[in-house]
Amino acid sequence: MKLIGYFRSSAAFRVRIALNLKGIAVEHASRHLRKGEQAAADYVALNPQKLVPTLVLESGEVLTQSLAILEYLEEIHPEPPLLPKDPVGRACVRALALIVTADVHPIQNLRVMAYLRDKFGQTEEAAFAWSRHWIETGFDSYEATVAKDARTGTYSHGDRPTFADLCLVPQVFNAQRFKVDMSRYPTIQRIYATCMKNPAFDAAQPMKQPDAES
Amino acid sequence: MKLIGYFRSSAAFRVRIALNLKGIAVEHASRHLRKGEQAAADYVALNPQKLVPTLVLESGEVLTQSLAILEYLEEIHPEPPLLPKDPVGRACVRALALIVTADVHPIQNLRVMAYLRDKFGQTEEAAFAWSRHWIETGFDSYEATVAKDARTGTYSHGDRPTFADLCLVPQVFNAQRFKVDMSRYPTIQRIYATCMKNPAFDAAQPMKQPDAES
Repeated sequence: MKLIGYFRSSAAFRVRIALNLKGIAVEHASRHLRKGEQAAADYVALNPQKLVPTLVLESGEVLTQSLAILEYLEEIHPEPPLLPKDPVGRACVRALALIVTADVHPIQNLRVMAYLRDKFGQTEEAAFAWSRHWIETGFDSYEATVAKDARTGTYSHGDRPTFADLCLVPQVFNAQRFKVDMSRYPTIQRIYATCMKNPAFDAAQPMKQPDAES
Repeated sequence: MKLIGYFRSSAAFRVRIALNLKGIAVEHASRHLRKGEQAAADYVALNPQKLVPTLVLESGEVLTQSLAILEYLEEIHPEPPLLPKDPVGRACVRALALIVTADVHPIQNLRVMAYLRDKFGQTEEAAFAWSRHWIETGFDSYEATVAKDARTGTYSHGDRPTFADLCLVPQVFNAQRFKVDMSRYPTIQRIYATCMKNPAFDAAQPMKQPDAES
């Protein structure tokens, strides 16, 4: 399998963590999002969304959308599980993952920030404030949910990593770049610290990728 | 079970279609999003995200995020299936669903539109253009994907409704409100027409809900 990503992409980061946790070796390739390489014709033929990641299977079939890829990896390689066994627990984990992947990240990714600057004439500062606003809105609900959830253990849901953690950690990296005050989120901070002690999360972080740039 | 929604919410609409297709009867309740009823303390206690839908189970447990709810309904009530059986097919359906639920809808929902007007001082017209831009960006990739997908039958993926259709149809309703030129999307239009002939989709549409307003 080949994973086409970008070191700083939160969505690719989620998939890298899953591959590491499950011990699945893949070839890694990169598209430089800031240079617009995701809009090249050969890439658009694979991924009409012009987004990363893309997972190319041995069969040649092409998977897109990080959460769909996580579900696929869980189905073909169920150990170790990244979802709980019970349907309600699975729904809670998926809801946490979706707080980040649907209601935070898409609102403040590169292409949206570009629209704010290019079409609305917003300053870098205003675009940063926008980003912080949506991260904080999402983290407020994530924190409220995990803080009250009796199932919470060392990770977002119990004592093993789940899809929720795979989505949370890249968003925390992103929040740090946008100078979000993380002291507002003690439970998220605790979960993040637990995750980063896990080598599967650590090895997946942006600055440890071959295409990393400072 | 009780579904708390809002007639015009795309996310609640998705869940209503799933319940209809699976023949699951639930109590329906509504929060008026334009009046801000989703921010009332009793609702925030159930759903800290202040979004709809929320599904309250017989056990009292509370599920949020429409895609997590769809996966839950699929697990506890597998017939008729709303995902294919094969892992690659499931990934393709989930990716289509996520084009809409992650990369279109959250960028142009009520709270984001309010930010554009209130914080950035954008006109109603500029906010509409923003909405159309993200719907068209998403529909361009959805159309490219379903048009070339050999598996495509009468619905987005084969000849039965899947999660993809449950997400697509509410977004088409939304696109019509924002005056998107749908003639650019012949495959989406064909799938939409197929869906709307299915009583489960038709009965779930906004104007047929008890809380509908013109």
